[in-house]
Amino acid sequence: MNDELIKDLECMKRTRQRLCALSDAQRKSLLASIAEGIARDKDSLIASNQEDLKAIADGPVKKRLALDEQKIADLQKGIEHVCTLADPIGEVLEKRKLDEGLILTRISASMGTICMIFEARPEALVQITSLCLRSGNAVVLKGGKEAQHTNKALFDSIKRSIAFLEKDSTWVALARSREDVDDLLKCEKLIDLVVPRGSNALVRHVMENTRIPVLGHSSGLCTIYVDKSADLKKSLDVLLDAKITYPAACNAVETILVHKDIAGAFLPRLQELFEKNGITIHADRQACLICPAFVEATDKDFDTEYLGLEAALSIVDSIQEAIEHINSHGSHHTDAIMAEDDQAARVFLRDVDSAGVYRNASTRFADGYRYGLGAEIGISTSKLHARGPVGLRGLMTEKWILEGSGQVSATYTGKNAKPFCHEDLI
Amino acid sequence: MNDELIKDLECMKRTRQRLCALSDAQRKSLLASIAEGIARDKDSLIASNQEDLKAIADGPVKKRLALDEQKIADLQKGIEHVCTLADPIGEVLEKRKLDEGLILTRISASMGTICMIFEARPEALVQITSLCLRSGNAVVLKGGKEAQHTNKALFDSIKRSIAFLEKDSTWVALARSREDVDDLLKCEKLIDLVVPRGSNALVRHVMENTRIPVLGHSSGLCTIYVDKSADLKKSLDVLLDAKITYPAACNAVETILVHKDIAGAFLPRLQELFEKNGITIHADRQACLICPAFVEATDKDFDTEYLGLEAALSIVDSIQEAIEHINSHGSHHTDAIMAEDDQAARVFLRDVDSAGVYRNASTRFADGYRYGLGAEIGISTSKLHARGPVGLRGLMTEKWILEGSGQVSATYTGKNAKPFCHEDLI
Repeated sequence: MNDELIKDLECMKRTRQRLCALSDAQRKSLLASIAEGIARDKDSLIASNQEDLKAIADGPVKKRLALDEQKIADLQKGIEHVCTLADPIGEVLEKRKLDEGLILTRISASMGTICMIFEARPEALVQITSLCLRSGNAVVLKGGKEAQHTNKALFDSIKRSIAFLEKDSTWVALARSREDVDDLLKCEKLIDLVVPRGSNALVRHVMENTRIPVLGHSSGLCTIYVDKSADLKKSLDVLLDAKITYPAACNAVETILVHKDIAGAFLPRLQELFEKNGITIHADRQACLICPAFVEATDKDFDTEYLGLEAALSIVDSIQEAIEHINSHGSHHTDAIMAEDDQAARVFLRDVDSAGVYRNASTRFADGYRYGLGAEIGISTSKLHARGPVGLRGLMTEKWILEGSGQVSATYTGKNAKPFCHEDLI
Repeated sequence: MNDELIKDLECMKRTRQRLCALSDAQRKSLLASIAEGIARDKDSLIASNQEDLKAIADGPVKKRLALDEQKIADLQKGIEHVCTLADPIGEVLEKRKLDEGLILTRISASMGTICMIFEARPEALVQITSLCLRSGNAVVLKGGKEAQHTNKALFDSIKRSIAFLEKDSTWVALARSREDVDDLLKCEKLIDLVVPRGSNALVRHVMENTRIPVLGHSSGLCTIYVDKSADLKKSLDVLLDAKITYPAACNAVETILVHKDIAGAFLPRLQELFEKNGITIHADRQACLICPAFVEATDKDFDTEYLGLEAALSIVDSIQEAIEHINSHGSHHTDAIMAEDDQAARVFLRDVDSAGVYRNASTRFADGYRYGLGAEIGISTSKLHARGPVGLRGLMTEKWILEGSGQVSATYTGKNAKPFCHEDLI
């Protein structure tokens, strides 16, 4: 166990209430200090980033990891954006008069201590820290090894900027090693929520090794069903977009289901389009008979998240078969129907049991920014708490406040019980 | 593994969508059939109940378990009440225009399959089944061994009543043995939520032995803090009510904290009142100096849920000390302050991190019926999903519906990206 880290977590549990006790304006000024600090520390941040870059071969990872003046300006803009979001603390969600002078209110409240585990991009550290502080949550951060110097420099800058308000208290902590992660996952008494962002393997490791609630998703097997009522041109556009714009994304399409009545007309056009874009289709035997250029699929293909330029394809006899396929093979992330028929769309939207269910739109829209949530914490495929792309709401819990003037329960029970009035006030 | 039960669960996963597809009126008529069936089967239900009662000694358990004409009439009333609740399916929670013809809606949706584990009272079986069916959820029930004949008879009656709509599908199943429970807890692919109702030991067993989300609470260590600004008479009334009306309840007070400035005036009155009511107080040394009639407490007392006519008591130097004590020793269930000072109350309500935080009211109000939730599924001390007493809302998840006309994500990215309009429609 990393004793220093545990001490930080214990201090967080004890002192994080002071963060919630700050006014909205104070929490905003805390963020403004962080933004100023990052600008001030620009040169040393870039120098630390160089340390990390030295160790990495040229390629997309290096590009994602690189911190230059432009990215630092973007970081500041990101913090300013978090300041523009409405104060998430103390929102009145329900208010009810139980009796004269006995008022019940359900309000939003900070979750507590959030543990954020992420890979590569150092922007994540700044973004998550600002979202947590804005919402009254303490946060313990664990970034990827490849960004360790950058993360340490960003963390130190943030710490310096909030020192004036963090006196005798700890609201932000940094874990360093892989072993720290395993320690953190055991701290169910000290951490309220873990948010892993990164590879499926990382998320799965977190989910399988902790009793702390996890917000995230370990897979994204999205399916698009092309109904017999589909507009074929639209369907081709959407399928290509859902695959090609970011094949490694969790909201990229992996399985394509096509209604038998349109397979003859649709599959050759799809095959041509996908081949032109370098996408391989693993299709069932029926589809291969129509398009011999398809690779014949095995059962495994329909449970595979390719995360690359490949897709599985099956012909279905009915919309019901499509829905059953999605509910049993999919990952309940985001699934779409291409259909001009309203009745078919209605059934699909109702019966597919996923976080996102779309009609005539690309699955790639499944994203907090695109949804207009302001900032995305992550995408959840769990059915509890928040589902789908999750904004600040995911970092909040709730609290029932009852304000009375000495009322006792005995008054409202037994033979001469006084009835509750249960009058909704909002 | 109980193969028959697993087969039922698999059928539920496949066919429960048909339950959600029913109209609100159809789901209500399903419940009406159940109510009629129970009335029709009255005699055989009472006969089965006699079987169970034979095996039990006279006492409160037998009383709770007994089913007579009155209780059967109450069961029917309970079902009718569930029919009066608003349809929980498809409530629009958020609606946003992303662009012309691209509409995003967040709606409430059924959770899926609920596993309900309960002890003793057979009413629970009927109540939970009606809440689940009303909310489009399939349910697998496991009742206590002592009520096995009664539960089986109630279950059979319900099955007969819904057979006309449950054709080729399964929405309600009954587990029989203790071993079934352990099987069920392993079915994370088939069950979406477990709701255990019963002893702390039962709930803890469930929580520690499953990866399925659990809605409930395994302890209720509630504290009442008597501030220096408290009205002493009100405080005595509330403390007595919070202990004596149902000492074994999870919302009964277990720990009493008293501000040092009023300890001298308050403790002798409290001691006299509690002694008269047969309640033993385990107090810290300071308090024992004021009231030698108190039993001296050990550290363990402040982490003990007595569930009987006992309470722990400590003198605190400040409201901050009281809050820290509650946040570290309490179970985050329900805690109260007795205070006439608004500022003190404000700090307490803000900084105590519990599902319910009260001012000048008995902790015994923590209950779904008293809160006006219509029906209570359970009380949750988890910070995720629903917190505190949970009504039908706890059985619902949500779903994002995106309806377009062929939009692709590429339109909204890159250099010439079209901006989203993100116009809230509700």
